[in-house]
Parts: sequence; C-alpha cells; structure tokens
Amino acid sequence: MIYLDNSATTKPYPEVLDTYRTVSERYFANPSSLHSLGGVSEHLLSRSREQAAALLHADPDEVVFTSGGTEGNNLAIKGTAFAYRNRGKHLIATSIEHASAGNAFSQLEELGFEVTYLPVNHDGRVAFEDFKKAYREDTILVSIMHVNNEVGTIQPVAEIGRFLKDKPKTVFHVDNVQGFSKVPLQLRESGIDLCTISGHKFHGPKGTGLLYVRKGIQLSPLFAGGGQEHQLRSGTENLPGICGMVKALRMTLAHESEGIAHLRKLQNRLFDGLKQIDNAVVHTPQSPLSSPHIVNVSFLGIKSEVLVHALEEEKIYVSTKSACSSKESGASEILKAMGVSDKEAEQAIRISLAYETTESEIDVFLKKLAEKVSQLKVVMK
Amino acid sequence: MIYLDNSATTKPYPEVLDTYRTVSERYFANPSSLHSLGGVSEHLLSRSREQAAALLHADPDEVVFTSGGTEGNNLAIKGTAFAYRNRGKHLIATSIEHASAGNAFSQLEELGFEVTYLPVNHDGRVAFEDFKKAYREDTILVSIMHVNNEVGTIQPVAEIGRFLKDKPKTVFHVDNVQGFSKVPLQLRESGIDLCTISGHKFHGPKGTGLLYVRKGIQLSPLFAGGGQEHQLRSGTENLPGICGMVKALRMTLAHESEGIAHLRKLQNRLFDGLKQIDNAVVHTPQSPLSSPHIVNVSFLGIKSEVLVHALEEEKIYVSTKSACSSKESGASEILKAMGVSDKEAEQAIRISLAYETTESEIDVFLKKLAEKVSQLKVVMK
Repeated sequence: MIYLDNSATTKPYPEVLDTYRTVSERYFANPSSLHSLGGVSEHLLSRSREQAAALLHADPDEVVFTSGGTEGNNLAIKGTAFAYRNRGKHLIATSIEHASAGNAFSQLEELGFEVTYLPVNHDGRVAFEDFKKAYREDTILVSIMHVNNEVGTIQPVAEIGRFLKDKPKTVFHVDNVQGFSKVPLQLRESGIDLCTISGHKFHGPKGTGLLYVRKGIQLSPLFAGGGQEHQLRSGTENLPGICGMVKALRMTLAHESEGIAHLRKLQNRLFDGLKQIDNAVVHTPQSPLSSPHIVNVSFLGIKSEVLVHALEEEKIYVSTKSACSSKESGASEILKAMGVSDKEAEQAIRISLAYETTESEIDVFLKKLAEKVSQLKVVMK
Repeated sequence: MIYLDNSATTKPYPEVLDTYRTVSERYFANPSSLHSLGGVSEHLLSRSREQAAALLHADPDEVVFTSGGTEGNNLAIKGTAFAYRNRGKHLIATSIEHASAGNAFSQLEELGFEVTYLPVNHDGRVAFEDFKKAYREDTILVSIMHVNNEVGTIQPVAEIGRFLKDKPKTVFHVDNVQGFSKVPLQLRESGIDLCTISGHKFHGPKGTGLLYVRKGIQLSPLFAGGGQEHQLRSGTENLPGICGMVKALRMTLAHESEGIAHLRKLQNRLFDGLKQIDNAVVHTPQSPLSSPHIVNVSFLGIKSEVLVHALEEEKIYVSTKSACSSKESGASEILKAMGVSDKEAEQAIRISLAYETTESEIDVFLKKLAEKVSQLKVVMK
C-alpha cells in the first residue's frame, strides 16, 4: 500500500496506541476526582500539558485540549465572536478556509456579524494589501489558515501577525491543522492569539486536538460545564487521547527539520516527475510558497474520481479535494477561488505526504500514475 | 482496590480497548475519503451507527456521535435554543442539573433567553405540578436530567414527556448520562426529542458520547464544518472511539436487567449497613425513587474530604460530590437545593457502583467505613 492521503488523516504511531492503552488501563480515574486515583490522573494531565506547552514554546495555561481541529476552529472563531461581541461585529477570513472555519463564519453571519472574505491569487495566496484594506476599527477577529488543505499554499500569517501586534482589540487566530510540523510557525512573538492543531494529522489519536490560547484572550466556551481546561472547554478529560496526542507531538517534533527537508525532496521529485506526464497541470506553487507535503495537480481530460479509483486498484491512495468535502459534487471551491476553471478543477487530485513516505514510494506512484493517465486518456477519447 | 466512584468515571472494558486498537491500526483512513480505504472506514462507521441505533431502539439517522456528555448537553441545549430562537425565548430546567447543562443555561441567559429552574423536594425530585405551572406558550425547550448525578434521584421524565407529546413547539431533552443502563428509559413513545449519554460512564472510551436526536428536530451545530454526523456535529469521526463505545454499549445492555437487579441488591445492602453506623444520614431516596447505583450519605461531624482520604488509605475510592465540582469549595448545591443544611451537605459522600461491583466489596467497604467513622469521630471531638 502507498498511502498518499496524509492531509485527510494519518496512521497513528504504534507508540501512541501503546500510550493510549496504558493510560486507559492504569489511569482511568477522573482527573477531577478528589481521591488519590484522581490525583494521579490529574498529575498525568498536568504533565501532558506541560510537555505540550514546552514543545510549542507556550505556557501550560495557554494549552487547551480539544477533540480535534473542527472543535479548535469553532471554539476559536465563535468563542471570540461571542466574547467580544460588544466591542465590534466585523470579522476577517479568507475565501479558502477549511469548512470548519468557513461554516463557523456563516453561522456568525446569520447571527448578525459581518465577515470580509479575502480573495486569493492564482497561487491560492491572500495579498497582505487586501488584508490591510479590509481591516477596520471594529474588526474583532482575523482568522487565517496557515497552510491551505487542498493546495498547500502558505498564507502571509507572519506579515498579518506583525500588523496586528499593536491592535489589541483584534484577536488573531491561525488554523494550523495542515501547517503543523510541515511549515514552522512561532506562536510567541508572532502576534498570534489563537492557534488550532489536530492530533490525527500528525499520527496522534483521532478525536484529539489542541487550541493555543494566548494569555489574556477570552473565549466564550462551546462546552460550558465543570470548568475543565481553564474554564474554556468543560468535560471529563480524554486522558488517554491527550497523552497519546502529546506522545505524537513529541515524536513528530523530535525530527521536524529532517522531516521537512525530506518532504521537500519528495515534493520536488513529484514536481519533476509530473512534468514528464502529458497534460498534467500543477496547482501547488513552488517552494517557498507552499508546504512541502502537498501537491495538487489536474490531468486534463480525466475526472478526479476516475483517477483516484484507478490508482486504488494499485493500492495507491490519493484524494480528490478536502476529505471533508470530497463527497459533495462539484469542483473544489478552493481551486475555483484561485481562478482555475470548473472543468480543470474537476480533474484535480491531491497527493499528500508524511515524514514516513519514502522516495521509492514516490517513484512507484509516479510510474503507476503515468500508466493510468495514459490508459485513461485512451478510454476518455 | 475497591472502586466506588463509578458515577465519576468507569474503568474501560478490556474488549473496548482491544476494539479501539484494532480500529486504529486497520481502519485508520478518514471515512470521508473517496478511496476504498475511506470506504471501509465509512462502512464501519455506518455499522456502528446501526448497532447503536438498534440497541437504543432508534433509527441510525437519529444517532449523533459526540465527544461526551458535556458536548451532548451543550449541543442539545444551545443547539435547540439557537435553532428555535425565533419561536420563543423561554426554557425550563431544574435547579439540580449537572454543570454541563446548568452552565449552558447560564450562557443562554446572558444572550437574552429566560430560564425557569424548577425546585426539588427533600428527595431531590421535581414536582410535575411545578413543571406544569412553569410551562408557557413560548417554552421552546425543557431539559431535565433523568437521574441526578450526586444523589441518584429519578426525575419524572415520563410524566413530563407525556405532557409534552402534544406540544410540538417544545423540544424535550433528557440528560441520561447517569441514568443510562441503570434506569431503563424508552426513547420512542416517550415524548423525548433529545437524549444525551456518555461513553466513559459505562466502561467505554473517554472522549466519546452519543446524542439521540429525534427525526425532525433541528439543532444549530456547535461544530460547523464538513457536515459529518448528519450536519449536526462536524469533524473527522473518532472511529476507534465510536467503535469502542458501541462495543461497551452492546456489552452493557447485554446484561442490563441482571445488572440493574444486582445493583439494587448492593444498594439495599448499603442502605442496611449504613443504618448500623452512628450518625449516618442517607440522602438518597429508596427504590423506586432512586437509581440503584448511587448512595449519598452524610456522617455528622465528619467532613467529606476527611472521610474520602481516610478511605483511600484502605484503597477504597468514593467521592464527595460530582467530580466536575469536587474541587470547588463549599457544600453540594444539589443537597442544598434539597433542603439539607450547609453543614450536613459538607459531610456527604457519594458511593457509586458498577455492574462489576461485588457483594464482598460492599461488605469490606461497610466494615472499613464503620471503623473509619468511629476513629474519626474520636479525633473530631
């Protein structure tokens, strides 16, 4: 099997599953219980939080454990809007956010908030000048994805963060679900107030995530209740999941720089190989404009679904667009926002890599891809 | 170890952890992915949903998988209020809800909703007459816990459900986190529109839960996004957690009636044993007014915390009040609402059982409890 759909989800590390099991068996007590069994669970929770904080160069009380990226984005966006609604009603996002951000903004529009969606250029990138023009006195939230999930384009998060640094009335959220461990991002000194990551995108357990909440930022919780997670996310803590995610975080960041260099090498190999295939139109921009783990490409004349299924006959797994929207009919909204025609967008596939992906897997993939494309072109004629 | 804090959380069944691991390893693909690996995950998800639905006598599209009881309660309560806000602004709850319901209502009050909190009698039970008086034309939601989490009292859910059956403009939510598998509750034919359960309360994985959403009921989602879970709860599905929870659901319900009978026997043994201990004041009402898995009792003259820690020296684990509020200072709000004095409420402990609890554990517990109480009474004098 050659699994090249790592942007949809990754295979959990065996060590992560070992941790999950051990914690489930030995430390099953509720961290909020007053007795010593609860105390041991609470200690483990605190240690996990400290470790996650150290790895992210944050403080433990800036770490909020969540159930995933969708929760993180919704909590950040709606939590900010509700907490600061008396300060202003204007919000800024991009036109190519993941559905978990985009649809949270739609809900807020229904509730009377006003949202400016920034356009993107042909590379899928927001122009800083457009952002500056959209910014207003009553802008209470700016939410930008760091790395686009379908195309891999990196957004000008650092520039926007610098601009917002002396705008204390505006909260800055970065959706880093795709960017984490692929494109380094400093949380401190960056102007970022909130940052979402998701465990299952870096070989952690499903149903886990983390929201960085800079000190001093208030959020109206989505989950009110017992006051866990610094009052921002109530509910009995999923301790096995949290410990498993922190394990994955540690394992991933331990070889981040080699991992990223390796991904870039594979991506270049893909870019080179795709040039040899007729009618391949690459949508992902070159380094340094893109994350090294994604390549989005159309094969003119071949519908995405057809190619995905042809490759799966060879046990090669790639995707059409975002997993979260892959079953909706129609072309990718992201590619369309980049100016790609409907037809070409309907012919796009996403190849997404992990640190574990090997050069020989890429070579086999390119060989099989070329075969399938030439076979299908004959059929399609 | 004698673990008598099963209302806070339970130890997961080993079979549940086996399922979790197998699914994590073999079926790690995103159920939303278009390729065949995603298809296999989606199939497993559908089968889990069908099994859960069959066990609960519901339809598969009435089952929404969540991250736990706190999410279920918040989604039910706030999701209803936002979805039907143009129909009315009045909500009814009780004065003894769990924090995950109670604090969700407080958030709604801040947003302009009006909440009537029904009082309870000395048994911790709401009077149906009080409910009828509180009910209004513009009541859009009634939310009642089935079994109180600290005292075990059963609320008149069936009576309220019958009353609400011909009130189509009012949504009826039951928080069944404590009642599930302890006190049978029919979802169909009951007038219940929404019902929350939590996986880790019946030996399932932490971070899992289920919200029953009767066909035709609309909810404004807390998590907007990719549209998973019938558009009501977006986010990549925690498939290992879901399969693990459904396994626990099946294992639990397979011996529900023997389990409940066994619990009632143990509870009676506790009631009898406690009569022999000086200064014991039991707050949990007798059958059929209480769930069989909880006994709440004060020992006059001995603070709860002191007794909890004395028992833990013998590796016996009980709790003071709800785990979610056990670290807040002050007496249980629930006991206070029942008319118990502050002082007596500060002396209450909660003993909570599982199907696995044995008679001999109860006997050892009662013996050790009597010893500790008599030792502590000397110290306290």
